[in-house]
Amino acid sequence: MKYIQSPREIERKSFEIITRELEVELPDPQTAPIIKRVIHTTADFEYAKLIKIHPEAVEAAQKALQEGCRIYTDTNMVLSGINKRILKKYGGEVYCLVGDPEVAREAKERGVTRSMVAMEKAMADPETKLFVIGNAPTALFILCQGIQEGKAKPSAIIGVPVGFVGAQESKELLMEQTVPHITIQGRKGGSTVAVAIVNALLYMLE
Amino acid sequence: MKYIQSPREIERKSFEIITRELEVELPDPQTAPIIKRVIHTTADFEYAKLIKIHPEAVEAAQKALQEGCRIYTDTNMVLSGINKRILKKYGGEVYCLVGDPEVAREAKERGVTRSMVAMEKAMADPETKLFVIGNAPTALFILCQGIQEGKAKPSAIIGVPVGFVGAQESKELLMEQTVPHITIQGRKGGSTVAVAIVNALLYMLE
Repeated sequence: MKYIQSPREIERKSFEIITRELEVELPDPQTAPIIKRVIHTTADFEYAKLIKIHPEAVEAAQKALQEGCRIYTDTNMVLSGINKRILKKYGGEVYCLVGDPEVAREAKERGVTRSMVAMEKAMADPETKLFVIGNAPTALFILCQGIQEGKAKPSAIIGVPVGFVGAQESKELLMEQTVPHITIQGRKGGSTVAVAIVNALLYMLE
Repeated sequence: MKYIQSPREIERKSFEIITRELEVELPDPQTAPIIKRVIHTTADFEYAKLIKIHPEAVEAAQKALQEGCRIYTDTNMVLSGINKRILKKYGGEVYCLVGDPEVAREAKERGVTRSMVAMEKAMADPETKLFVIGNAPTALFILCQGIQEGKAKPSAIIGVPVGFVGAQESKELLMEQTVPHITIQGRKGGSTVAVAIVNALLYMLE
């Protein structure tokens, strides 16, 4: 069976197909690569309509990335998906605390998600400038609350938890915040979507 | 803002909503948990119609998992998402070779994807009984070819690459194989879908 084997050619052709099949116009060269990469990752064109990019989000997130910021994410899948080669080039790093034994113990004791406890700890670190939430609505709720209370002052938030309980509500709360953010309306989202957004931002720096 | 904070309660309620909103009947108790977990992970009900589960796939994959098999996956995101607590309980392990420097070198030299080279190496290990392809069509093509040539004899394949170039074709080739498999028709799929399927199989063992 014949198939394209060159990774560059696969990527080039994929984006060509996405551009051709997109039903909405993407006139903004700053956000179009992000939207296309999310569709590339999900094969779901609905994301073109669901994605909400705050007017200052791309600039704020890219500035933080260029300055080599710390990124906190709520899942190890996001942690493993972010392009570390480019991230490290700018001196950046990404961490996740949900697998931390101390976090697990405290979450069990309090009967809350590990994502919540982990987010509380991440917010306490003033060096963390970018938050990437791919999975847990509870993490995004805690973060928005922390911002409202002045406990966290991130440069930008990529908040795209997926699911049926709290995901939509947590993202609606994010959209009310003045902190620059990128999110997905409704229930959809997830770790691969979060990774696509971060990597699109990183690739645009190159 | 009030929101549900207990992980068990979030999961219970999520599956209740999915069951209620599903438009197709899922009469098979062996496959329903897999289908529901994929929807849980994507918030995309279309997967109920797109997922194709070979009649022997659940039994074959679970037998391999129970016997503590080696799992090969094409991405580090899938590697990090699979529930290691349950996997290890049965003596199983999961590995991925795309980050291997030797694989990267060879892929660059040959102008093919790292996924392909990594898959060739994984197929050469007779202990690898379960293949989980979440991302790379090229990996799934190589695997199907290897099976046809008698080079690989896995117990089961979870093959759900996503995308616009080769993904659909690679999954159609998988559906022609007699080896038990779980796949997604069309372009959709991805690492989170692959993880949802493997974890659903693991949770059903518990």
